Amino acid sequence: MFKLYYAPGTCALASHIALEEAGAAYTTERLDFRSNQQNSPEYLKVNPKGRVPALVTDRGILTETPAMLAFIAQSFPQAKLAPFDDAFAFAQAQSFNSYLCSTVHVAHAHKMRGHRWATEESSFADMKRKVPDTMGASFALIERDMLKGPWVMGEQYTICDPYLFTLALWLEGDSVDLADLPKVADHRKRMSERAAVQKVLAAEKS
Amino acid sequence: MFKLYYAPGTCALASHIALEEAGAAYTTERLDFRSNQQNSPEYLKVNPKGRVPALVTDRGILTETPAMLAFIAQSFPQAKLAPFDDAFAFAQAQSFNSYLCSTVHVAHAHKMRGHRWATEESSFADMKRKVPDTMGASFALIERDMLKGPWVMGEQYTICDPYLFTLALWLEGDSVDLADLPKVADHRKRMSERAAVQKVLAAEKS
Repeated sequence: MFKLYYAPGTCALASHIALEEAGAAYTTERLDFRSNQQNSPEYLKVNPKGRVPALVTDRGILTETPAMLAFIAQSFPQAKLAPFDDAFAFAQAQSFNSYLCSTVHVAHAHKMRGHRWATEESSFADMKRKVPDTMGASFALIERDMLKGPWVMGEQYTICDPYLFTLALWLEGDSVDLADLPKVADHRKRMSERAAVQKVLAAEKS
Repeated sequence: MFKLYYAPGTCALASHIALEEAGAAYTTERLDFRSNQQNSPEYLKVNPKGRVPALVTDRGILTETPAMLAFIAQSFPQAKLAPFDDAFAFAQAQSFNSYLCSTVHVAHAHKMRGHRWATEESSFADMKRKVPDTMGASFALIERDMLKGPWVMGEQYTICDPYLFTLALWLEGDSVDLADLPKVADHRKRMSERAAVQKVLAAEKS
């Protein structure tokens, strides 16, 4: 039995969907970001980074979305969520997810989390203004070079798909026009039709 | 036979060391960042992101350090650079490397690469001023919670070690005092004594 700490609207959605797709037995615990619960003494014992997601397992606590997604896939091999038997294909999936965490999510974070990297209000405003460009450029690269279709890795649905879906949900809020990203838009639509995705989105909204 | 594209002083060093530790057959190609070679039409065919590292394999090209490190480890299992037979331990290693790429490297990048996320000179200067704090805080967390010792994952040397070493080499330049980080300093010293590390550092300097 796993326990997932999450907050709605965050990248924790990717791991939440992956748990559901894998058929894992899990519970969830929602953090209230408005009251800064992610930095409460209780939660800092779970994840000293003060971030979501965190996954409690019987071996210990895992953080960082790419690592959690691969762990969920490896723990439920029958769900075939990652190509572990093919080192190169697995590396391609990990490369995609690493790009999402280190470039795309970071680009998005400059809209509301500028205080992580700067101090002045003028810098926060400057960063915020650039987010449509940086998110647009990241997703243009995904559209052109990375998303094989129909799923990220091609015919096989993998742990890359819920992660891409999660970040693609931020596009309108980041003023990126989905009309310029037909493959990404198609992927998002196809993801929205999956039973596991609908169940998780409903749970996070309830 | 692999080919690694790198530039001195970059995170490509981690993959370079891992190739050497794995006993891989590989060649290297150095990019000249001063002439912006990473954005030349020729190199953008190798890596459309315009970044290093990139690893040319007989199956295709891989980018993103955490994915490349895991691929090198999985391609040379006899070198025992990652615990592939233990899903949780492997996830812990991936989590560590994911933190380095998405948080620590990103913190460092705000010193010289502020133009990625903002437009104004005043913002670049503001970001640059905060780097000692953000790098200091990231490494304080590594020192306190993550680096088990003597190696990152404990007794076994893994793909986490060359990556931590690579980013720890940036600490003085980022005005972080190694005296506050005795475990990190000890790890860096022990890494420096490894034959593979000495060989790679000499090759990148030559």
